[in-house]
Amino acid sequence: MLKEAIYHRPKNNFAYAYDEKTLHIRLQSKKDDLHSVDLVFGDPYDWDTHYNRWNTTQKEMTKTGSDELFDYWLVEIQPEFRRLRYGFKLTKGNEVQYYTEKGYFDELPTDDVAYFFCFPFLNKIDVFQAPTWVKDTVWYQIFPERFANGDKTIDPPGTLPWGSTEPTPTNFFGGDFEGVIQNLDYLVELGVTGIYFTPIFKATSNHKYDTIDYLELDPQFGDKETFRRLVKTCHQKGIKVMLDAVFNHSGYYSPFFQDVVEKGEASKYKDWFHIRNFPIVTEPTPNYDTFAFTYMMPKLNTEHPEVKKYLLDVGRYWIEEFDIDGWRLDVANEVDHQFWREFRTAVKDVKPDVYILGEIWHDSMPWLQGDQFDAVMNYPFTTAVLNFFAKNTIDVTEFTNILSNVLHSYPNNVNEVAFNLLDSHDTPRILTIAKNHKEKVKLLYLFQMSFIGTPCIYYGDEIGMTGEMDPGCRKCMEWNPAEQDLELFSHVKKLLELRRTFPEFGNGGEFKIIDTNPETNYLVYAKTSNERTIYFVVNNLEQQLDVSLSLSQSYQQLINLWTEDTLQPTEHLEFQLNPLDFKIILAKH
Amino acid sequence: MLKEAIYHRPKNNFAYAYDEKTLHIRLQSKKDDLHSVDLVFGDPYDWDTHYNRWNTTQKEMTKTGSDELFDYWLVEIQPEFRRLRYGFKLTKGNEVQYYTEKGYFDELPTDDVAYFFCFPFLNKIDVFQAPTWVKDTVWYQIFPERFANGDKTIDPPGTLPWGSTEPTPTNFFGGDFEGVIQNLDYLVELGVTGIYFTPIFKATSNHKYDTIDYLELDPQFGDKETFRRLVKTCHQKGIKVMLDAVFNHSGYYSPFFQDVVEKGEASKYKDWFHIRNFPIVTEPTPNYDTFAFTYMMPKLNTEHPEVKKYLLDVGRYWIEEFDIDGWRLDVANEVDHQFWREFRTAVKDVKPDVYILGEIWHDSMPWLQGDQFDAVMNYPFTTAVLNFFAKNTIDVTEFTNILSNVLHSYPNNVNEVAFNLLDSHDTPRILTIAKNHKEKVKLLYLFQMSFIGTPCIYYGDEIGMTGEMDPGCRKCMEWNPAEQDLELFSHVKKLLELRRTFPEFGNGGEFKIIDTNPETNYLVYAKTSNERTIYFVVNNLEQQLDVSLSLSQSYQQLINLWTEDTLQPTEHLEFQLNPLDFKIILAKH
Repeated sequence: MLKEAIYHRPKNNFAYAYDEKTLHIRLQSKKDDLHSVDLVFGDPYDWDTHYNRWNTTQKEMTKTGSDELFDYWLVEIQPEFRRLRYGFKLTKGNEVQYYTEKGYFDELPTDDVAYFFCFPFLNKIDVFQAPTWVKDTVWYQIFPERFANGDKTIDPPGTLPWGSTEPTPTNFFGGDFEGVIQNLDYLVELGVTGIYFTPIFKATSNHKYDTIDYLELDPQFGDKETFRRLVKTCHQKGIKVMLDAVFNHSGYYSPFFQDVVEKGEASKYKDWFHIRNFPIVTEPTPNYDTFAFTYMMPKLNTEHPEVKKYLLDVGRYWIEEFDIDGWRLDVANEVDHQFWREFRTAVKDVKPDVYILGEIWHDSMPWLQGDQFDAVMNYPFTTAVLNFFAKNTIDVTEFTNILSNVLHSYPNNVNEVAFNLLDSHDTPRILTIAKNHKEKVKLLYLFQMSFIGTPCIYYGDEIGMTGEMDPGCRKCMEWNPAEQDLELFSHVKKLLELRRTFPEFGNGGEFKIIDTNPETNYLVYAKTSNERTIYFVVNNLEQQLDVSLSLSQSYQQLINLWTEDTLQPTEHLEFQLNPLDFKIILAKH
Repeated sequence: MLKEAIYHRPKNNFAYAYDEKTLHIRLQSKKDDLHSVDLVFGDPYDWDTHYNRWNTTQKEMTKTGSDELFDYWLVEIQPEFRRLRYGFKLTKGNEVQYYTEKGYFDELPTDDVAYFFCFPFLNKIDVFQAPTWVKDTVWYQIFPERFANGDKTIDPPGTLPWGSTEPTPTNFFGGDFEGVIQNLDYLVELGVTGIYFTPIFKATSNHKYDTIDYLELDPQFGDKETFRRLVKTCHQKGIKVMLDAVFNHSGYYSPFFQDVVEKGEASKYKDWFHIRNFPIVTEPTPNYDTFAFTYMMPKLNTEHPEVKKYLLDVGRYWIEEFDIDGWRLDVANEVDHQFWREFRTAVKDVKPDVYILGEIWHDSMPWLQGDQFDAVMNYPFTTAVLNFFAKNTIDVTEFTNILSNVLHSYPNNVNEVAFNLLDSHDTPRILTIAKNHKEKVKLLYLFQMSFIGTPCIYYGDEIGMTGEMDPGCRKCMEWNPAEQDLELFSHVKKLLELRRTFPEFGNGGEFKIIDTNPETNYLVYAKTSNERTIYFVVNNLEQQLDVSLSLSQSYQQLINLWTEDTLQPTEHLEFQLNPLDFKIILAKH
């Protein structure tokens, strides 16, 4: 066996509390190397005084997936006294090794508990626990300036007629809260249960990421009473509301930064930012830390007690006063961990089931230990599904390797609340990425809605809107039914109905790759619970495909979920799939 | 190259802030596999708009050590804007691979920054920073009941004459604060700069780990005025004082637990513990969570707000009122992380440079991220040095592999404040472990005092006291000079003088293995700064050894630090070492 490929380290995705009673223990090994792995474990203080040795038990681990280089193994344990020491029995043919924190042994060393890996105590407060409502939520992202103009009396000067021209970085179309309220039933019909709004606070740009006042709404969207009514109406219709918190940086025109621009070193806000020298200059490069190199976005000093107090007050204010349900944190990983820990305590004190979603493009384990975020935006998922379904730049082997790698990079309870987006106000729209190939977009939605995590739809994608990288992707929402792709809308709606109806479709099922063929890019995956399995058979090829599918066992009932046809019980299915078509089969005992 | 052996993940020992400006990036690869590794890095927002690609720089990494399976590589980077994206250029002969967060590439992918590993922002508040005084401290552990009886008027009933008999789990000899005060000059002479006291709070046992009252001193040790004088006198003599915080559990006779024993479910303290059902029973097994299975030590519910407030008040009280310098946290890993985060904030608010030391026997990275502890007790070090020098159960190859593994399991700034103990009140004494072989004990001290971290001497070891596992190791301190091993005392004293005089001897030098021979257990290691190198040549064999040592370069000055003799400048030294003897050579340019 290849010892160099074995990896385990407690208190991250390799050993974590799944809930108050349950530990998940994972192991990495070289792909197709080990034949079996058993967890050897016990209570650290369970000493056998008669034989003078530590009492251990064994439990077989399950191979839950593989990526390009590695296999991943998992076992679930509920230790009676919430304490665990453990090692791994690795088997390859006749070769057996015991892997512990102190290395490898031919025989299990039971003369000292200190050899073993340690999960010291399952303390309830340390368990990663996102709000329970999140894993059943379907998000809809709204860029407020462009969703619907419901109140023309508050349009900013120079507002253009709705959809009259292409969006530019600086034009305005007057989207507002009233427009959202008027169209909530549209979202309800689609099956949406949560709205993520990009920023709505006072700012100069049309995207509002350059906040001037975190405690005021931008008047072009409406007043606080209207926003309160928006949240209330959403809640009445079963829709949660998440706002965008841009705490990494303020806008250049925030009064705090303007005070520093004016008064320089004499400003009482000079330590609210990271200013290298005075007076403030923006050319040729700003002499203060910024988001990227954007002089319009001076980085806030979130270590400063006054800044911290101000932003934590902001975090609480919109929950206490308007009952919002979540905060999406912009550029979350460039703000200090300490700030986010205090942010979590502050907002959860006000509303324990508020959702905290961080914008992080990279590996995010350090923010997902239970003390900071509930989830991050799952960009590795985004990249993989776009490359496979929309761009066809990777084959099914690479695709499933990436997904498996992403799933095994985090605890299962983290994966269940990951924010799975396909595109956003920062990227081209999916139909554009798919070169206007609608069937590809349908497969994207099929996969997104049936994967682990919580899916998010970018406004208008569901009716076939197109758009290049921003500003192109920020077009006005198309409300003319004649211009909407209603067939695509029905496709998404149907997927969401299935996700609502069958828990296994969403986070109630364990995701498993069943079959792939890199030559045809054929893909079969399953979502399984104790009661049933849903098979997803996907033809990601622009040709007809003959499918021959062996089921893992003989089921008493097989149903084509898309057509609702009942199939003849069998262990083997043969059928044809049209180009870029799919079949969803529910199998029950 | 063996890709399965490559490992890197940011924000732990593989990528961390060494200080406010400096990042350390490490990589693991298969032992003796790669010929060189370069870091390829840049600012995430430094986009070359002309060529439409990301701007990167390269810097060669240094192989800092190896263990049984792996090599470890390190590079230091000071990113101008405190942000970093990076990958690794791996070279083995003609074979070159670029390793990124998204896998391996033949050519560096510069069309997207998202491929790369991410250290998002070096926020000062997140930098792991132990108090600066710690890395120069030499600790001395005192078990107060057994160090010195300075005030017979407060002896508990039944106190035995000092040293009149062997220690038992229940007998008392009357050690007290006055005894410590009277003997501080002894510690000063030895070179001690910090005392770690095992518990001194009110409790029934002689070891006091079964706390009755965390806000009162045990009267057998003295009153608060005496303790205040003890701390003050220590400070006058340049000695820091660290106390033992037993917060995982209280004693059975604590008034809080007794209230629950008496009143059962009606007790207002019923939620202060983890009680499974009422009334409390202790037989056949306790129906409440305990430390191990010890009914005398009911586990405290540190998630409960009142318990938390009480214990945080305790943490602050002894600092505010008595100016102590450190807390050693008993059974630290069984208490929740959230409690320790609040503990850190609470005690550092009162005294920013207080030292927080956790008792953890296992891999401790999750507690050493800057938000919880400053250090842990370095038991892996203890086991390795005892097995090599005292018990000879491992050879020099295994010994250096373990040390290298331990050093590479943590950031360098964490290693510098690790608490390196050889034994304690919970283990046999080193001379006993070494089967009374004093020369072995001398080598143990040599290695401990010249390694990275802060050494701790268990009271009496330095004058040759013996003792088996407790209670044997808790004998009364030997104060009769005729019974003390003064030669051993001089040996330790001289080592501490050298550690004080030459920064490289302690944490001012980088540790590196120079030469080993597993057949003779011959060991040469060096501690190197920019100015000079100290070579430690150790004969861990009970036979004379001919040594032939090639220095890494030609030095202008070579000094035998132990004899203070100046040696002839040379690149090659040949000499003989007596059984279990050593040579320390200072080399300067």
